[in-house]
Amino acid sequence: MRKLLIIGIGAGDPDHMTVQAIKALNRADVVFLPDKGQEKAALRHLREQICARFIEKPYRTVTVETPQRAEAGSDYRGVVDDWHARIAANYARLFTAELAEGEHGALLVWGDPALYDSTLRIVERVRAGGLALDWEVIPGISSVQVLAARHRIPLNRIGEPILITTGRKLAAGFPAGQDSVVVMLDGEQAFAQIAPEDLEIFWGAYLGTADEILIAGRLSEVAGEIERVRAQAREKHGWIMDTYLLRRMQA
Amino acid sequence: MRKLLIIGIGAGDPDHMTVQAIKALNRADVVFLPDKGQEKAALRHLREQICARFIEKPYRTVTVETPQRAEAGSDYRGVVDDWHARIAANYARLFTAELAEGEHGALLVWGDPALYDSTLRIVERVRAGGLALDWEVIPGISSVQVLAARHRIPLNRIGEPILITTGRKLAAGFPAGQDSVVVMLDGEQAFAQIAPEDLEIFWGAYLGTADEILIAGRLSEVAGEIERVRAQAREKHGWIMDTYLLRRMQA
Ligand SMILES: C[S@@+](CC[C@H](N)C(=O)[O-])C[C@H]1O[C@@H](n2cnc3c(N)ncnc32)[C@H](O)[C@@H]1O
Ligand SMILES: C[S@@+](CC[C@H](N)C(=O)[O-])C[C@H]1O[C@@H](n2cnc3c(N)ncnc32)[C@H](O)[C@@H]1O
Repeated sequence: MRKLLIIGIGAGDPDHMTVQAIKALNRADVVFLPDKGQEKAALRHLREQICARFIEKPYRTVTVETPQRAEAGSDYRGVVDDWHARIAANYARLFTAELAEGEHGALLVWGDPALYDSTLRIVERVRAGGLALDWEVIPGISSVQVLAARHRIPLNRIGEPILITTGRKLAAGFPAGQDSVVVMLDGEQAFAQIAPEDLEIFWGAYLGTADEILIAGRLSEVAGEIERVRAQAREKHGWIMDTYLLRRMQA
Repeated sequence: MRKLLIIGIGAGDPDHMTVQAIKALNRADVVFLPDKGQEKAALRHLREQICARFIEKPYRTVTVETPQRAEAGSDYRGVVDDWHARIAANYARLFTAELAEGEHGALLVWGDPALYDSTLRIVERVRAGGLALDWEVIPGISSVQVLAARHRIPLNRIGEPILITTGRKLAAGFPAGQDSVVVMLDGEQAFAQIAPEDLEIFWGAYLGTADEILIAGRLSEVAGEIERVRAQAREKHGWIMDTYLLRRMQA
């Protein structure tokens, strides 16, 4: 049987790698590396750096082309589902061609594989498609944890819950009844579209990298600054990755 | 000024340590290690193992006694607040006596320092009390991530939020409008007290350790088994740490 190692590599700093992830990488015969558009060149570079620095034995690399995703309109799940089906077909072909029975292939996942990442769903599909496959998952430091660490804050209030959600969901308003809300995948600056009363924001971009930017404060006071800084950074680098915690201020 | 390194050490497996955490440990002159009751002997052992294995230079250790917490009745936050005040006073005394100006002290935090851990709040209090202190936070693999990795599942559905909450909160019922809910700090098996309809559970105890136990299935079908296995394991080891994901089954 072919075996995959699905390895969380952390969210920007190669030093986020765990001992467990390094050991897993060193069990791989083949490393599958995505080849993406311009936005992801920096991410691909980090993956290559991680392989070069941590793998201490011979290994092969295979480039995986990621099919284009259709624009997500109202049918977000349908579009994602179709996209995953095409990615899975591509992986099935590559695993068959490039990975021999009994060999280990590594997939390097940004951050933690359990958080807003499709790799686990895709390998499930590959197996459902008929290829005999087994896999192991290695957790990794997620961008949410780096955000909290760099701002030196807990994500939760004492005994209170944390909601992790997307920009798309936040655009509908700060979730009723919540106190601490982490927002990922926000391409539309939803933080600037909601009523800012009583909220503070802890924002971070390019976390863990040399380009890291941190801004924190009362949402009503810093939302404009974050929008400005974000637009400038995006212009300068050609891409951006950012995440933030919104929380109600305490009386 | 005195400097603290607040280091996430992962949730049970020393291999959860990141390269960043190992480097931080090696910058410490003094490691502060909590001395707790029987329940935590295993945890203290893991902390000592981590120091012995990863620190490659001379260092001192200082044992920190943790004051008893009063039983939390209706005033949960008040009780915790009072407990933190006593812990902070204790730390202030130890930092003053055991850490020289310019030295680095390490605090080893279970899992990730941002998730249901009081260390960050306590050092804020120590500084508010007048001691000149600075600190850095190093993220760590949390038990939530290990739970997901071992069950090989994403925490979220495509594009959907994740709520992380406590057993105490869950006892009031599965949170309205939520799809995926991670529960920590559940000493009362709240999963067995809520209406199980349409929910599946992914449960894990002693995650990352040699004693790890995993159970997953329809909540209505496995709740009893989890209660039984949990009680037996707790009896055998004298303590237990468990966490789980509840999520609505898809049609
Ligand atoms: C597809 S999700 C993947 C998340 C990843 N699995 C994790 O654990 O961080 C991508 C989103 O993660 C966040 N993100 C990832 N890396 C980041 C970084 N270095 N700085 C800021 N945000 C980051 C952003 O919100 C981005 O839109
Ligand atoms: C005080 S909180 C600390 C959480 C920690 N900071 C983290 O990131 O995992 C303790 C709770 O974490 C969960 N937990 C921590 N380690 C665990 C483990 N190895 N296995 C299962 N649950 C664990 C349990 O729900 C426990 O009640």
